[in-house]
Amino acid sequence: MSREFFATRTVTEALAGFSPALRTPTQTVALAEALGRVPTCDVIAPGPLPGFARSTVDGYAVRAADTYGASEGLPCYLDVVGAVRMGRQPDVTVTAGAAVEMPTGGVLPAGADAVVMVEYTNETMPGTVEVLRPIAPGGGVVHADDDVTAGTVLIPAGRPLRAVDLGMLAAAGVTKLLAHARPRVAILSTGDEVVPPATATLRPGQVRDAIAPALAGLVVEAGGWPVPCGIVPDDPAALRCALQLALAQSDLVVVSAGSSVGTRDATADAVASLGKPGIFCHGLAIKPGKPTLLAECDGVPVIGLPGNPLSALVVFRLVGVPLVWRLAGCATPPPEPSVIASLTRDVPSEAGRRDVVQVQLDGGQAEPLFGASALLSVLTRADGYLVVAEPATGLDAGADVSVTLYR
Amino acid sequence: MSREFFATRTVTEALAGFSPALRTPTQTVALAEALGRVPTCDVIAPGPLPGFARSTVDGYAVRAADTYGASEGLPCYLDVVGAVRMGRQPDVTVTAGAAVEMPTGGVLPAGADAVVMVEYTNETMPGTVEVLRPIAPGGGVVHADDDVTAGTVLIPAGRPLRAVDLGMLAAAGVTKLLAHARPRVAILSTGDEVVPPATATLRPGQVRDAIAPALAGLVVEAGGWPVPCGIVPDDPAALRCALQLALAQSDLVVVSAGSSVGTRDATADAVASLGKPGIFCHGLAIKPGKPTLLAECDGVPVIGLPGNPLSALVVFRLVGVPLVWRLAGCATPPPEPSVIASLTRDVPSEAGRRDVVQVQLDGGQAEPLFGASALLSVLTRADGYLVVAEPATGLDAGADVSVTLYR
Repeated sequence: MSREFFATRTVTEALAGFSPALRTPTQTVALAEALGRVPTCDVIAPGPLPGFARSTVDGYAVRAADTYGASEGLPCYLDVVGAVRMGRQPDVTVTAGAAVEMPTGGVLPAGADAVVMVEYTNETMPGTVEVLRPIAPGGGVVHADDDVTAGTVLIPAGRPLRAVDLGMLAAAGVTKLLAHARPRVAILSTGDEVVPPATATLRPGQVRDAIAPALAGLVVEAGGWPVPCGIVPDDPAALRCALQLALAQSDLVVVSAGSSVGTRDATADAVASLGKPGIFCHGLAIKPGKPTLLAECDGVPVIGLPGNPLSALVVFRLVGVPLVWRLAGCATPPPEPSVIASLTRDVPSEAGRRDVVQVQLDGGQAEPLFGASALLSVLTRADGYLVVAEPATGLDAGADVSVTLYR
Repeated sequence: MSREFFATRTVTEALAGFSPALRTPTQTVALAEALGRVPTCDVIAPGPLPGFARSTVDGYAVRAADTYGASEGLPCYLDVVGAVRMGRQPDVTVTAGAAVEMPTGGVLPAGADAVVMVEYTNETMPGTVEVLRPIAPGGGVVHADDDVTAGTVLIPAGRPLRAVDLGMLAAAGVTKLLAHARPRVAILSTGDEVVPPATATLRPGQVRDAIAPALAGLVVEAGGWPVPCGIVPDDPAALRCALQLALAQSDLVVVSAGSSVGTRDATADAVASLGKPGIFCHGLAIKPGKPTLLAECDGVPVIGLPGNPLSALVVFRLVGVPLVWRLAGCATPPPEPSVIASLTRDVPSEAGRRDVVQVQLDGGQAEPLFGASALLSVLTRADGYLVVAEPATGLDAGADVSVTLYR
């Protein structure tokens, strides 16, 4: 009845071995749109930062040597010869015995090599300041290249840009950069029983397409661009045609395989006929999610997901999300939040299979949620999931487990 | 010289006590735009799910009682009286001694109360199936309301929508819902020395605005909508005017206070004059980030950040991000990823102050990154940060610390 599972792989094998060479093309991205984007090459600092010797405190620019030996009991006295204004080149020079008023962030005037904090001074009479503590050369100052040296790597390639990276790029005047295009992920649902979510009234036996909107959400979270490709009936010719269209306009094709075994084989047949090297595996040693197809059509990866929403979403999170990141040039996806919790009851498993168990958390306790893999509510009720690794035959109640948290 | 720190608070006091009542208004959001949005009220299931009794396996719909006693050695024989097609109401009834072919997900025909997996059957001659194992009533079936009961809470209010929630809403036919508007966060930079990031050549003493683009990124990550309000010079009248404009068009105003102490006081004065109840605190027991202003103008919260990028971004992450979530109706921000690592050297701190220390991770070791708070590179080089809580006077080398990871 079915040829499924003729080539089952473990999740580890799939993550390591199923690695289409495709990376999305390079495009120029404006700073305001760059959050989460992956630079294609190191961004090099065009100049030093801050670019000038700068005060880190409010106080007085001085020659450090003039302050040696100063104390509360025996302050040194300096002539205040001027004041530095923010954002301006100082128009005064600090000579021996002189001091210049400095705001935090101001340009260190010529002749000065330190800035004494205002807290350690007293301007007792106009034009004269008492310095109550000695300061070493360089004190209260950042030098022109203390933050960044010209020509060094400002932002590394391959790491999704963080909010603070945008700040660093802005500081360096880099307002656009080269980044991988967001991976376009075609999402195709199949099944005679599947109808669009907007269908108000269902005929008996019909179900609304839950998988496509949830996949689109996971794709967005992974920095991809969902390309909705609609619903295809259980008809091999229609599926082949829809796959061909999807392959032509995307960097990854995801097919949720309806519920029928026939559809899975039809997907495998279509993929095999549409490009090389074809099927990588047709069955994954994971629960839920065993009936998973991984394939490649002339460089474009194809993931055939189980028809059950729970299984489909578990597999896409574990196998599809890292692939979306890799297509965008990011080898290591950003970390997920997790927490250690105590398992409330035994979780059975089979050696050689990765089990993904949804859990609810309650004050440090992880309660496994069991239920048919057709039930989407198992996922919406879960706070996160735990993984039973391939070698294990289960987990015991009371064990400390790492729970990956949903955000 | 300055009135700063006249009302210093701890971070805990600020998070608990600084809680403007404002929540963003309710708006109707389409499913495709709903990821991360916060529902304003519980979404109630309009009907049961899956909505009909459904097979969870490929096999044969039967009366369970007909299979009692069946075994490999002594199978029971049933007449195959028809087949159920996906997405269709069955046109056959299962009477005693009868069976109907079932695909996974098909509608259970009238008269049947279980579905035997195809693996436990043999169709030895056309029209007759051998059943090799007994099945209990309900076996291989999910009932019409096993996933969701009509009238129950499908998705709770106040929790940002996850990808899987979108799937559940789609399954229930809920293609739009009521959610809080994204908080509009006005971002205002101040300082005579600050110029736009696109400024190609700087005059001596000028710096490009690094804080505003980084804040915009943090606001987006927190589900907010950054409203860039430009750069204001160190002039109280101009600042008051810009603040007034920002207050009128946003749910939260963030001012990065330039580097001058005077600006901080000017911000405080302007806020106090523009609305009630005015200033909550003017100084936060945190390092870096002490010169932080928290205030409220007729319901709209205002955060005055230090002028140093590192300090400003640390404070906004710890105090501003939870506030953005709260404005959108989410009391508990989504969890952040973290990891336990061993500290490579002593980290000094002062009791009563929360210290936020940037760290680099290397194989389970957390290396603290020290450096002036003016240095943005401390943040871009960091993999995450650790927190030294208020009661502690420091952390010892070798201690296990929790590092919150940047994504």
